[in-house]
Amino acid sequence: MRKYAVILAGSGVFDGSEIHEATLTMLAIMQHGGTYQCFAPDTQQHHVVNHLSGDEMPETRNVLIESARIARGNVKNILELKAKDYDALVIPGGFGVAKNLCDYAVKGAEFTVIPELEKVLKEFQSAGKPIAALCISPVIISKVFEGAKVTIGQDEGTAKHINEIGGHHVSTSHGEVIFDEQYKIFTTPCYMLDANIEQIYQGAFNIIKALSELK
Amino acid sequence: MRKYAVILAGSGVFDGSEIHEATLTMLAIMQHGGTYQCFAPDTQQHHVVNHLSGDEMPETRNVLIESARIARGNVKNILELKAKDYDALVIPGGFGVAKNLCDYAVKGAEFTVIPELEKVLKEFQSAGKPIAALCISPVIISKVFEGAKVTIGQDEGTAKHINEIGGHHVSTSHGEVIFDEQYKIFTTPCYMLDANIEQIYQGAFNIIKALSELK
Repeated sequence: MRKYAVILAGSGVFDGSEIHEATLTMLAIMQHGGTYQCFAPDTQQHHVVNHLSGDEMPETRNVLIESARIARGNVKNILELKAKDYDALVIPGGFGVAKNLCDYAVKGAEFTVIPELEKVLKEFQSAGKPIAALCISPVIISKVFEGAKVTIGQDEGTAKHINEIGGHHVSTSHGEVIFDEQYKIFTTPCYMLDANIEQIYQGAFNIIKALSELK
Repeated sequence: MRKYAVILAGSGVFDGSEIHEATLTMLAIMQHGGTYQCFAPDTQQHHVVNHLSGDEMPETRNVLIESARIARGNVKNILELKAKDYDALVIPGGFGVAKNLCDYAVKGAEFTVIPELEKVLKEFQSAGKPIAALCISPVIISKVFEGAKVTIGQDEGTAKHINEIGGHHVSTSHGEVIFDEQYKIFTTPCYMLDANIEQIYQGAFNIIKALSELK
């Protein structure tokens, strides 16, 4: 049985983790005989978005506390995450990844990853443990692991940024998984494509399947 | 293809719709060849719960706006829901059902259902269209449809309340679906049992499968 650390970034596609991607990642982990523990940073969200109107709301929310909605209360501070305690790390997507786990949404190619996440990513990679990144999360992979081969689907602007920061973008469609052998990193596009929830399940299922079959 | 109306009650197990149940219901609908449209009431939540600590938070949130997080923005006011436009209605669970769609969490057996939901439930039933209720939602069914045979799993307190208000509770385990022929109503326990996400998927899948096979 594989123990997965799942990184959340809030709860809701526009300012947090994408709820379907996070939920279906957890489901896929169990379907492949694994268990999971969710983690998130204890920081304020970049902002709060009214998901009905798309407008910014005049309030503040905490990434760890909101992530607990997806995790049914069972989420830990990312500072507690040690690579030695888990077999693999997974980052579902959502704009929160680009707003709360790094500042890609604001700064484009010049962005930086929050240090607590960069640290655990490097720790997993040094320990030879695989990492999976869905949707927009592969931009973080490209920033942390130079030259990694990743996919965010077919969005040309994001693909261009990935190549600019030294990454290697591969165009994909629904449910396809790209594997970087050097770093043991898996990526899949999910809602970076115009997708429905069945296609998201396919992507989450395929990436966890590929990861769980890694020798 | 069946068109499903999915009723949401916010976003998060402790004060809104249970996120896994709502997400996996939507997935199951698509897997059985259906499409869905989410609806929620445009009202303030009963309260806001910090899902990490379990404490009440000193803020207010709107049920429709928070439901939009699960629906990726695509949720309509329940006042716009007409039975003639859909083939079936589904209510996922979560404490928000017992706090925002009715006041069962506060009043126990003496609770009332919000009129806009009671109206659409009766409209679907009068039109001979099936209804599915997951987790705690069957308490609403018992209140609106006298004598309906339902399940919320094995919780004795809730089962007793259901029988007190004239309902007929049947004890079930993971993934089991109870069908009331008179009212064409399907129920399944999901997180009313101590369950994992794979068992929730099983419950959501089975209830939508049963509903979609109804002659």
